[in-house]
Amino acid sequence: MAVLTLLTDFGTRDGYVGAMKGVILARAPGATVVDITHDIPPQDIAAAAFVLAQAAPFYPPGTVHVVVVDPGVGGRRRGVIVESGGQVFVAPDNGVLSLAAPVDAGWEISAPEFRRPEVSPTFHGRDVFAPAAARLCAGASPSEAGPRVSLEGRLAPRPVLFSNDGRKVTGHVVHVDRFGNLVTDIGAGILPARPAVRIGNVEIPEVKITYEDVPSGEPVAYIGSAGTLEVAVRDGSATDVLDVARGAPVVVSGAFPA
Amino acid sequence: MAVLTLLTDFGTRDGYVGAMKGVILARAPGATVVDITHDIPPQDIAAAAFVLAQAAPFYPPGTVHVVVVDPGVGGRRRGVIVESGGQVFVAPDNGVLSLAAPVDAGWEISAPEFRRPEVSPTFHGRDVFAPAAARLCAGASPSEAGPRVSLEGRLAPRPVLFSNDGRKVTGHVVHVDRFGNLVTDIGAGILPARPAVRIGNVEIPEVKITYEDVPSGEPVAYIGSAGTLEVAVRDGSATDVLDVARGAPVVVSGAFPA
Amino acid sequence: MAVLTLLTDFGTRDGYVGAMKGVILARAPGATVVDITHDIPPQDIAAAAFVLAQAAPFYPPGTVHVVVVDPGVGGRRRGVIVESGGQVFVAPDNGVLSLAAPVDAGWEISAPEFRRPEVSPTFHGRDVFAPAAARLCAGASPSEAGPRVSLEGRLAPRPVLFSNDGRKVTGHVVHVDRFGNLVTDIGAGILPARPAVRIGNVEIPEVKITYEDVPSGEPVAYIGSAGTLEVAVRDGSATDVLDVARGAPVVVSGAFPA
Repeated sequence: MAVLTLLTDFGTRDGYVGAMKGVILARAPGATVVDITHDIPPQDIAAAAFVLAQAAPFYPPGTVHVVVVDPGVGGRRRGVIVESGGQVFVAPDNGVLSLAAPVDAGWEISAPEFRRPEVSPTFHGRDVFAPAAARLCAGASPSEAGPRVSLEGRLAPRPVLFSNDGRKVTGHVVHVDRFGNLVTDIGAGILPARPAVRIGNVEIPEVKITYEDVPSGEPVAYIGSAGTLEVAVRDGSATDVLDVARGAPVVVSGAFPA
Repeated sequence: MAVLTLLTDFGTRDGYVGAMKGVILARAPGATVVDITHDIPPQDIAAAAFVLAQAAPFYPPGTVHVVVVDPGVGGRRRGVIVESGGQVFVAPDNGVLSLAAPVDAGWEISAPEFRRPEVSPTFHGRDVFAPAAARLCAGASPSEAGPRVSLEGRLAPRPVLFSNDGRKVTGHVVHVDRFGNLVTDIGAGILPARPAVRIGNVEIPEVKITYEDVPSGEPVAYIGSAGTLEVAVRDGSATDVLDVARGAPVVVSGAFPA
Repeated sequence: MAVLTLLTDFGTRDGYVGAMKGVILARAPGATVVDITHDIPPQDIAAAAFVLAQAAPFYPPGTVHVVVVDPGVGGRRRGVIVESGGQVFVAPDNGVLSLAAPVDAGWEISAPEFRRPEVSPTFHGRDVFAPAAARLCAGASPSEAGPRVSLEGRLAPRPVLFSNDGRKVTGHVVHVDRFGNLVTDIGAGILPARPAVRIGNVEIPEVKITYEDVPSGEPVAYIGSAGTLEVAVRDGSATDVLDVARGAPVVVSGAFPA
């Protein structure tokens, strides 16, 4: 029986997640149901896409990921099943899969066996995505769900830009984590030799390895667990101390290859 | 092996939920243990009853639901097992089951095999409800737990009232969800033709289908996933924007059948 | 297949916990993965140690507990596996196991099969502790992980002190729970006859059994589910009402045995 993960913005104080789990366990008895998170900020598709991309690659082949951050529920956007990297994703077609499953097409969820008999226009998590995922867990093929469709939802991340003089690269803070660490979109592979980092009003003269490489309370730049540049404050919160939020620019200067 | 769900007001920062799961897994190896929520506001029996009723019906027959919102722990209230709709509920007899399992009698949890050898007067979740639920999961019958008893705990929801002139129905906000959506107790089946909704200081002239039926920032009334009238603000929080909280009255006018 | 628990300070809004679960399920298919909590305050080793000690003893023999509160990640502190009480603990050697697994030695996690091929210096939860735990769940022996080592991390709890005149014992608040209840380190076994409790600016003249033994809004002292003295405010929050936080002294007077 496959592993089935849940990632939503439903929070944990209502019955929404519990109802979804019930639908899944009623239709796929014995499924291993795993919470990735339900604490995506309400309707924050970009945050969900980022978190999914951080977690999904570590799951075994055949895992079914159910992703419900769905401000357009009940409207024109489609519910889809997408295959990517040996895993299956069930989600609204609104860009939330852009990073974890960067493919162009999927299957629309339209077959009655993939939906509950009555579908609430405001809770497709329970009435469409959960039963579709359970059916996949129980062995159905995504192509049984409905017609093959081009995906419409796509996040448009801002590009990482090199300066004309070839001395700087500018990226952005793409995620602020629970610790206040600032995750950027500047990949380790494009860092120059002897990189220095400017973020907010701070110049960080070196890229270190880990938090302990600076004194407590000091900012530290390092390659994070996502493989990109991150900025933290040791034993503190970089977002608070540096007053830097998601979307803020980050500039790295140094000796780039000619 | 049955599915066992947990619904408490214990939060997730202490060891209480972890201890309960340990007791369950030690006594019912291989049980599928599922969190519905642990984020019920402390001691809020009505909120727990509502959330349970939203989630429980979707679980398979034989599911054991453990519900611990228990301000009277260690006092006179009994711990009980209740059967309803093919499922089993384990909870204090304080009304928390009123909505999900609206029955009049259950079994008191008194048999030693349904309790831990030593019972803390302040943590029946760990020492009474978890072992009782594990025993049920492992195949015991509720009637083995103790004597059949009449249930004493009962929530008394305020009635939905029709006006004398037959032109209005007045209900209440019974739940505010994570998104700030306002769930009422006015069932879809009693809505008049051409319903208009008054809530807080706002008059909403129509009942729509879903959020996208109004512009961003506007209030929208619709039939929610619980089958009752709800009010949201598209891309916003109705509880904040309309300044309306649980308990507030909601008035629907329109053309009622004579 | 063993039970595997997770206890971290990662929170639930990022992908960190989801990534760990993926690593575990990819390497130990069918493992029962249980969340104890991810809401330990960031880097609060003492809080994690306390919560772990509240929950771990209730799990079945052979349970693997993964504990990641790890401010020194990537630095000099070791990752270790510790056996205690028939259970296995996987954690940084920083004292977080001091209370639940009070032993002097464990095994360093150094064997390649116990780690992911590439180890991020800032996310040993995913790259060291999760794969090590999965390997243990899948049947490996802790001694295969690396050399036997003495543990270095140790919490140094403040002692509970008896006054020179033998009339008082002074302990501390060691945990404030979700309800605002104040858990102390004064064991039930050392309470005098007719104990009175001083905490903050309040003198509580008796130790009762449970919350209902006092009127609503009143402070109540009782032996909590951890077997130590606790102070609550019935239907309220003792930490708020009494303005008492973790670390505050608690003095019990009464008739001690001579």
